[in-house]
Amino acid sequence: MVNRRPVTIEWGDCDPAGIVFYPRYFAIFDACTAALFQAALGMPKIQWTEKFGIVGIPMVDTRGKFSVPSAYGDEVVVESRVTAFRRSSFDVEHRLLKADGALGVEGFETRVWVARDPNNPKGIKAAAIPAEVVAAFGG
Amino acid sequence: MVNRRPVTIEWGDCDPAGIVFYPRYFAIFDACTAALFQAALGMPKIQWTEKFGIVGIPMVDTRGKFSVPSAYGDEVVVESRVTAFRRSSFDVEHRLLKADGALGVEGFETRVWVARDPNNPKGIKAAAIPAEVVAAFGG
Amino acid sequence: MVNRRPVTIEWGDCDPAGIVFYPRYFAIFDACTAALFQAALGMPKIQWTEKFGIVGIPMVDTRGKFSVPSAYGDEVVVESRVTAFRRSSFDVEHRLLKADGALGVEGFETRVWVARDPNNPKGIKAAAIPAEVVAAFGG
Amino acid sequence: MVNRRPVTIEWGDCDPAGIVFYPRYFAIFDACTAALFQAALGMPKIQWTEKFGIVGIPMVDTRGKFSVPSAYGDEVVVESRVTAFRRSSFDVEHRLLKADGALGVEGFETRVWVARDPNNPKGIKAAAIPAEVVAAFGG
Repeated sequence: MVNRRPVTIEWGDCDPAGIVFYPRYFAIFDACTAALFQAALGMPKIQWTEKFGIVGIPMVDTRGKFSVPSAYGDEVVVESRVTAFRRSSFDVEHRLLKADGALGVEGFETRVWVARDPNNPKGIKAAAIPAEVVAAFGG
Repeated sequence: MVNRRPVTIEWGDCDPAGIVFYPRYFAIFDACTAALFQAALGMPKIQWTEKFGIVGIPMVDTRGKFSVPSAYGDEVVVESRVTAFRRSSFDVEHRLLKADGALGVEGFETRVWVARDPNNPKGIKAAAIPAEVVAAFGG
Repeated sequence: MVNRRPVTIEWGDCDPAGIVFYPRYFAIFDACTAALFQAALGMPKIQWTEKFGIVGIPMVDTRGKFSVPSAYGDEVVVESRVTAFRRSSFDVEHRLLKADGALGVEGFETRVWVARDPNNPKGIKAAAIPAEVVAAFGG
Repeated sequence: MVNRRPVTIEWGDCDPAGIVFYPRYFAIFDACTAALFQAALGMPKIQWTEKFGIVGIPMVDTRGKFSVPSAYGDEVVVESRVTAFRRSSFDVEHRLLKADGALGVEGFETRVWVARDPNNPKGIKAAAIPAEVVAAFGG
């Protein structure tokens, strides 16, 4: 299960060096993770978070490796996939490919499956990832 | 009641032309409106929205006039004030001044004082701005 | 000449009220103006700015009117068109339409056609908009 | 040489969960690295990049570890320092501390000291970090 998402680099994504301001890659990757789950689960994030009764999938650790810069007007593709499911956390990997196929950026994410804390209405708590979710990714 | 707020233009605020990407000015002005109300009401937004039982002060109309660009590293000052209070809406004006005193950008905002709708728990509704708030601005 | 552009509202576009943080609309509209010119001129901005020897089309005045909020996951469409060409400036109008066709946001822009100043290599200067550009918009 | 920088979390930094949208931390850390070098070198980035004849210090690898979320209105402090200087690359570490002293986020950066390529006017090239720079950090 790999989701491929085309992305146009906009003027406002770029910095005075004329290349993507790297925090923007993390925003792009966050949207790509949402698109990956939408493709796997067949419904948008706002629906599957409700279906599974969770608050969200907050990030606990993320990394970006920047190999080839992108400039405004570039049409790139981001390939995203889950590389590991654990009890209540999972890893996502993104590969941003330039128009010529070169690997521009790699993104790595560790996120947690988080529900409301049944013992504290204002708190949140890691929860077990449903087997149905893991299965939807072919796991 | 004029609030003066120093702002450093960061690398990430600027575009490939080397100047501030104009949507960033609106984010800066939004923070300046929060700072203006904090100065007038003597507490942060998160507290005064709770005190007055409102959801927030959403924007209904905003305008920016851009006269002199700013570049990264520039130290500017934003002067902010409320120019009109009406029953449930009000106007804010921002003047971004360059280090030499030149007027760089003007911002104009019309916002609404919005509370939960008592007849619809999920809805929101314009509410009357309390006299105490108007008074805090010297009105 | 109206360009229609589908836009997905992402999680990262939204604020703690769960709706689009309004400065993001200006970034979206900036990308829509680039897309409008790309559609009219048949090439991306990075190419037509070079073809016509200009530095860019900086904003001098912009306004947003916010009627109906959008939340993450919303699929909206932005309709963009040039409403006036003058000697060296022009107006763009954007209409962001919700999935049900409701008008969510209107954007108004006045931009300038800007070239390098021939008398000052570091300076920029408003230039006449080429007839070819106006014609490409059906003007 | 540790630079401490107070940061106010703004409404526009936060997402629908009410906490900082994590890509914003990277933008904050980028500004903190600029502030760290400004403190060490006694001049803003725009000046020291010119003094040392470099294009900038682009990121090649960065990581964020998120332990405790921050919400709008929070006043936090970011402590930043260089943890290693190599011939032409260096590492920066950021620790975002909450008002109660708790460690909220850690940021790790590897950046390169980059100059114009003398053999290619449009290209860039890693260059040796001047001893004067390393010394300014007490190295």
